[in-house]
Amino acid sequence: MEPSNLTASEAARAIASGELTSEALLQSCLEQIYKLDKEVKAFAHVADVSALETARKLDQLSSKGALHGIPFAAKDIIDSHDMPTSYGSAIYANAQPVTDASCIALARRSGGVLLGKTVTTEFANLTPNETRNPIDTNRTPGGSSSGSAAAVAAGMVPVAFGTQTTQSTIRPAAFCGVHGYNPTTGHFRMSGVREAAGTFDRLGLITRSLEDIQLVRDLLLLRPANTFKISPKPPRIAFCRSHLWNEVDGFYRSEIETAIKQLRIAGASVKEIELPSEFKSLPEAHRWISSFEFARNFAFEIDVHWEKISPQLREGRIADGLSCTPERYFESLAFMRSAMTMIPALFDETDVIVTASTLSSAPIGIEATGSAAIGSIWTPLHLPCVTLPVFKTPEGLPLGLQVLGPLHGDDKLLPNAAWIEHSL
Amino acid sequence: MEPSNLTASEAARAIASGELTSEALLQSCLEQIYKLDKEVKAFAHVADVSALETARKLDQLSSKGALHGIPFAAKDIIDSHDMPTSYGSAIYANAQPVTDASCIALARRSGGVLLGKTVTTEFANLTPNETRNPIDTNRTPGGSSSGSAAAVAAGMVPVAFGTQTTQSTIRPAAFCGVHGYNPTTGHFRMSGVREAAGTFDRLGLITRSLEDIQLVRDLLLLRPANTFKISPKPPRIAFCRSHLWNEVDGFYRSEIETAIKQLRIAGASVKEIELPSEFKSLPEAHRWISSFEFARNFAFEIDVHWEKISPQLREGRIADGLSCTPERYFESLAFMRSAMTMIPALFDETDVIVTASTLSSAPIGIEATGSAAIGSIWTPLHLPCVTLPVFKTPEGLPLGLQVLGPLHGDDKLLPNAAWIEHSL
Repeated sequence: MEPSNLTASEAARAIASGELTSEALLQSCLEQIYKLDKEVKAFAHVADVSALETARKLDQLSSKGALHGIPFAAKDIIDSHDMPTSYGSAIYANAQPVTDASCIALARRSGGVLLGKTVTTEFANLTPNETRNPIDTNRTPGGSSSGSAAAVAAGMVPVAFGTQTTQSTIRPAAFCGVHGYNPTTGHFRMSGVREAAGTFDRLGLITRSLEDIQLVRDLLLLRPANTFKISPKPPRIAFCRSHLWNEVDGFYRSEIETAIKQLRIAGASVKEIELPSEFKSLPEAHRWISSFEFARNFAFEIDVHWEKISPQLREGRIADGLSCTPERYFESLAFMRSAMTMIPALFDETDVIVTASTLSSAPIGIEATGSAAIGSIWTPLHLPCVTLPVFKTPEGLPLGLQVLGPLHGDDKLLPNAAWIEHSL
Repeated sequence: MEPSNLTASEAARAIASGELTSEALLQSCLEQIYKLDKEVKAFAHVADVSALETARKLDQLSSKGALHGIPFAAKDIIDSHDMPTSYGSAIYANAQPVTDASCIALARRSGGVLLGKTVTTEFANLTPNETRNPIDTNRTPGGSSSGSAAAVAAGMVPVAFGTQTTQSTIRPAAFCGVHGYNPTTGHFRMSGVREAAGTFDRLGLITRSLEDIQLVRDLLLLRPANTFKISPKPPRIAFCRSHLWNEVDGFYRSEIETAIKQLRIAGASVKEIELPSEFKSLPEAHRWISSFEFARNFAFEIDVHWEKISPQLREGRIADGLSCTPERYFESLAFMRSAMTMIPALFDETDVIVTASTLSSAPIGIEATGSAAIGSIWTPLHLPCVTLPVFKTPEGLPLGLQVLGPLHGDDKLLPNAAWIEHSL
């Protein structure tokens, strides 16, 4: 097996045991980039020379930490002190931040090698840049963490940081057939990550395994790496179709229904739940909160660089945000908080909620990143979530299964999701 | 009256009517800076040349907005694209960000003239830089928004942005005898403001009047400026001594008790409330949450610039944060949210809570910024708050009265606080 196909955890074990060097792993990842990235365009910046130097140095050292010698990438709205950060916008072509974002510094502290910055949509909003889905390059990789998902799926890097404000980690991970994870909102620090809409913005992880999610989660929380274990007992599952079920692609719906049966057969207790009727207003609250915040966060760009902002962003999120009164914004925030008080009832005798990750597989074309509708229900609840790449369409396109845990329940969510993944 | 002594609202009216030019106002502010700032050291950077140019240009234009021609300053952890931002740390001496923070861009959009960056404690934590209290230069101005409060109090600028993670706006404003305000946590965007502890960080305003707070609040929310009015009817007041009452200076306690009597006489209904006993744990939750987040946010500085971090910060907040397990952090977050569910009961038939702003007037010495204890109760509740400069010690040192409103109740809090200020 090519080193570039290993998960971060597998590669870390191989490096620790002396079977693999960081340099060889990095070379293998770079080969994938040189081979594929002219077409996929996952990377906005590849720091091949400095990353190789770092890898060679790490090969001379005893282990610095859980990510020792492992290449990683970061979405290009995450600052790095030694390579440019462009936020997906021509305004900031080659802009050089003065610091490393918290997540980059912590990954480096654990021995990780920052290989480059991955393409983001414009300011992590809807307007895509030129990344293609490596599974089918006629299709979008999803967004806004387009390059992070494409790079992990294409074997260019085992782990990449993304972010999510609506569905910007779950959607591209699902479209590209990899694992995506967002923690309970607030668990991971956002220092050095450009704010889109602070109420919702979360750092997300894109990996090739749940074990890798746990690995990176542990280092971001600054705690010792835990050996990852599948939950020894089947989780209590609540299957939630949500009010968007009729918008989910038919084949995908039947795959999910079949998976639910398999999980029951494998020993899980599964009940079906409906969301409180109030939750139908969550997408609207999400829209007003995120648009209101976005339109104010980008005041400098709007005033000084208006002509460099895409028409889609101007006429979409920004116009939306400018049309939202403060009163509507405050009401939306209060509504979101009241909806969150209903979360404990959702998880009554329930360990995880299982639902669709997206409405469909990756659509054809790269001029849009696909629907984020499912995220607009779950993101305002602040729940931790993963997407598992467990389905494929007859054409071979990936589809994910989304698994959500209760607030602060991330450390149980991951082993429970592993049980589900293992049983499918 | 010197133009430098006007409030922003007064100056804006004088400029609009042609009685004053932006250039004359700026010159008057600069004179104060040239005269006093060698000793007070409120400013980390004064952009006198470019600010004068901007003021002259604005004098040629019809009004751009509510802050047309008015100088303002921003705490030096708030990014500006055209002047350095040092975050109060030698690590970033003369560092140049690529963008304007949302608050700076929005103030400029309204015609405000960024006059400079005001001194912050190191990364908006406890270690002071060299600012002195302009009321008595042997004393601290408080922190972490030290320079913002000192500059407004010394007539160097009518309005300055600060931030608050514990009590970093209320305390310096109270110590320097000016108005300080923090909105409901989340109302003002933090894009371009260096994160200290994202759960608590809020942009704060330091001004010479409540009217100015409303003026700047409106422009940050991107809504038309409202004519500021004192509440036509007396507010229903809950007087809360809190469990810290015995730590409040005796003279200050008696001033507050007297003020409560005056407010009753002026027609306000005043009841006394005790905080729920659970709230005694809020300061500890605040400590763990803020320290946990801080220690992870500054991973880059810890790893790359350790020797340039003050011993106080290393051994204080950072050590504290590194000793906090993720489990304790999650529990503290959950506890904070459960405490917040008790807020509606606190405001039952109550418009505002009145309490002390600080434990005392500004202590002697500039090697510390004074106790932030009172903030560690109120900040975790996310409530909007103002401090009113309504008391003075026999030595002439300012003391504030803190007035808090319910979540999202900012627009009523300000007129109610004005009623209180007017009645004292």
